[in-house]
Amino acid sequence: MPHIHIIGIGTGNPEHVTIQAINAMNASDAIFIPTKGPEKDGLAAVRREICSRYVTNSKTEIIEFSVPKRATADRTYLESVDAWHAAIAETYVRLIEGLPEAGTGAFLIWGDPSLYDSTIRILERARVASSFGFAFSVIPGITSVQALAASHRIPINLVGKPLELTTGRRLVEKGNRAESTVVMLDGELAFSKIDDPDAEIFWGAYLGTPDEITRAGRLADVADEIVRVRAEARARHGWIMDIYLLRKGHDFDDL
Amino acid sequence: MPHIHIIGIGTGNPEHVTIQAINAMNASDAIFIPTKGPEKDGLAAVRREICSRYVTNSKTEIIEFSVPKRATADRTYLESVDAWHAAIAETYVRLIEGLPEAGTGAFLIWGDPSLYDSTIRILERARVASSFGFAFSVIPGITSVQALAASHRIPINLVGKPLELTTGRRLVEKGNRAESTVVMLDGELAFSKIDDPDAEIFWGAYLGTPDEITRAGRLADVADEIVRVRAEARARHGWIMDIYLLRKGHDFDDL
Repeated sequence: MPHIHIIGIGTGNPEHVTIQAINAMNASDAIFIPTKGPEKDGLAAVRREICSRYVTNSKTEIIEFSVPKRATADRTYLESVDAWHAAIAETYVRLIEGLPEAGTGAFLIWGDPSLYDSTIRILERARVASSFGFAFSVIPGITSVQALAASHRIPINLVGKPLELTTGRRLVEKGNRAESTVVMLDGELAFSKIDDPDAEIFWGAYLGTPDEITRAGRLADVADEIVRVRAEARARHGWIMDIYLLRKGHDFDDL
Repeated sequence: MPHIHIIGIGTGNPEHVTIQAINAMNASDAIFIPTKGPEKDGLAAVRREICSRYVTNSKTEIIEFSVPKRATADRTYLESVDAWHAAIAETYVRLIEGLPEAGTGAFLIWGDPSLYDSTIRILERARVASSFGFAFSVIPGITSVQALAASHRIPINLVGKPLELTTGRRLVEKGNRAESTVVMLDGELAFSKIDDPDAEIFWGAYLGTPDEITRAGRLADVADEIVRVRAEARARHGWIMDIYLLRKGHDFDDL
């Protein structure tokens, strides 16, 4: 039965890669690399760099494949995601069919495969859709949440307090409720739309890469600057990946 | 000015260590290893294994130090933590004073230094308390949240939905509110005290180590078994570190 490794590779710094990830890459007959879809040029370069730096097994093949695009017309967000996942699952079935008998394949995932990534759920679909069985394992990687905290050199939670990870969409819908909220997948500048001037924001873009930018401060003081810096960087690079922490209160507030 | 690396080393599997962590260990004059306090024997062995496996710089010294104990009598949880942090900060000042001039030291942190760990905030205190300045950097590591998801081979969040990380204490106080809640630092078996029989639980202990145990299922079906397995394992090892995800609903529920 084929075996698939779903490998987290961190957020853009090739040194985020773990020993476990390197061993799994080198234990694979094929590493599957997406060449289209959401993959941006800057990210594709990091992925190639990771393979050339760490793959020392001459029998490991790098196989490029093109990712179906997500159709968004005439459907809700969730409908479009569901149909997109089905299309990607078909692509995965073909890739796995191409492995040697009882062979091993690997997908390299930005950040960690378990957090705001759908490779695991799409592989589960591929298993149902395929006429053959396969096993898979998950290898954790450094997430952008951790890269954000590391770059700002801050604890991500207050002592004994919870942390919420959410999306820009949800932050606008629900407001800034938790003591510490990390917002991912925010194309809508949700931080600039909430009414919480005294919250602190810790923002970062292109984390882990040489292009990394960070800003921090009281939301009312720095929100405009972040909007401006973000727009400039996005125009310069042609894409942006960013994330931020919103924090209310301080450690030992309720001592 | 001395420089301190706060290095995340993952959750017990020496292969969780990143290339960035290995490079920082080998760039350090001293690696500070706690020998008492919350450190359990099984964990101390993993830390020693990581140093012997990855530290190749013969000039890097391993320096053991003893961690002050947390006094809990006659004070609240937060008061006891505050006083404990102050005592550890004094210990850190002495360790950093012992470095060569403009030398580099490293602390190895379970999981990630930013998540439910206080080394960053204690080092900030040490900086204020010390008569000299020092700089520090943070190197992210694999957390038990990620190790849990990897072992269960599941996404930790539902598509487009938030994730809450909290403590056992808070779960009991506030109830199981979010679609996905990860509970850390739960010595109180909070999962067995909440009224949410249809939630799914994904539980793991000693994650990443050869002693790893996992259980998953409908909370009402498996809670008693987890309580029993946990008590047996804790008695056998003399300590336990565990974590779990509570999940309500499914992907695309509101499609």
